[in-house]
Amino acid sequence: MKRIETEELLGALKWRYATKKFDSERRIDPETWAALEETLVLSPSSFGLQPWKFLVITDPAVKSSLVSLSWGQKQLSEASHVVVLTVKHPLTTEDIRRHIDRTVEVHGIPIDTLAGLEKAITGFVAQPGLDIRGWSTRQVYIALGNFMTASALLGIDTCPMEGIDPAAYDKALGLEGTGYFTVVACPAGYRAADDKSSIRPKVRFPVEHVLTRIGA
Amino acid sequence: MKRIETEELLGALKWRYATKKFDSERRIDPETWAALEETLVLSPSSFGLQPWKFLVITDPAVKSSLVSLSWGQKQLSEASHVVVLTVKHPLTTEDIRRHIDRTVEVHGIPIDTLAGLEKAITGFVAQPGLDIRGWSTRQVYIALGNFMTASALLGIDTCPMEGIDPAAYDKALGLEGTGYFTVVACPAGYRAADDKSSIRPKVRFPVEHVLTRIGA
Repeated sequence: MKRIETEELLGALKWRYATKKFDSERRIDPETWAALEETLVLSPSSFGLQPWKFLVITDPAVKSSLVSLSWGQKQLSEASHVVVLTVKHPLTTEDIRRHIDRTVEVHGIPIDTLAGLEKAITGFVAQPGLDIRGWSTRQVYIALGNFMTASALLGIDTCPMEGIDPAAYDKALGLEGTGYFTVVACPAGYRAADDKSSIRPKVRFPVEHVLTRIGA
Repeated sequence: MKRIETEELLGALKWRYATKKFDSERRIDPETWAALEETLVLSPSSFGLQPWKFLVITDPAVKSSLVSLSWGQKQLSEASHVVVLTVKHPLTTEDIRRHIDRTVEVHGIPIDTLAGLEKAITGFVAQPGLDIRGWSTRQVYIALGNFMTASALLGIDTCPMEGIDPAAYDKALGLEGTGYFTVVACPAGYRAADDKSSIRPKVRFPVEHVLTRIGA
């Protein structure tokens, strides 16, 4: 595989910021958006279980309806696309079987060869004391991290948004009764020219405060 | 900012997989590793609080000692670098103040202008019913997602690893009493030529199963 240059990676990560104001006139072109959808689909998750569904909202009325469910954050109506990341709960034996069936299909192997894996996943999910919803939700955050980084590399701005009313989102987006629950929203698009946040230097602790090396 | 091509992004994400066997002879070069450390530091988090510390282990004896604390997973000893992602808990008013002080320093603004922000974060962290450790841990998973994607783009293999004994890691790595707790490990390096996992097609659900579009 041909790797990108370190400057390309770091340039994108330094350019990225939580966009406070999007340019409501600019739309992400279809090819770029298709790549970002594929990025979401390709997100890693534990066991490869993909305990999630991603809602991609471009309908202006629906995007606007989310603003009042999100402390008035207008990025939801201004941004080109809004992704709502949801978690599957509970994770059932059917969910696990669906993953096993898909593995059989993609790898072209007999289902018998995956019996041990299926048993292991089922045992993991059912283990006493495990907060399975918390576990699945953490997987969703891998997808969020992957999506924000991928977006930046394609020159797309994002704003991760936890300050939302998840239950109201579930109702507004027709999720009730589906087994999927809203976790976090992430508008995507292009920063407005007058978003003052975009010119502020990024605040990070010095590396020696957040990273410890053990070894030479 | 100059964006990368969609093919470069998708090529890296398709090339990525959870590496089962690393080439124990190959080491990540210092420039590439420095970029990946910076990637970790630049990871987004809610409020920018960075409720984490990353341990980077290259010491062969320490890496090897983790294998028996991780269900015998040899990637920990074989890989060039092992990152252990840890979470700060509890999040104290001092942690919040540390972030505010750093913002003052980086933005060169009077601390008074951040009083509202500090109050908002403090109120958020202290809100009744919030599982603050769960919340902080989700932020760590953003860093994990960011790190895996960034690594792939630089041609570096990784293996996210939840199957570890976090309390034993805390003890082995000297975290006890520091306020930081092991969350997840992620070896990084180069896949072994004979890792059969590397040639298996990636298993993902079809896009229409995990993504719903609302809008034209």
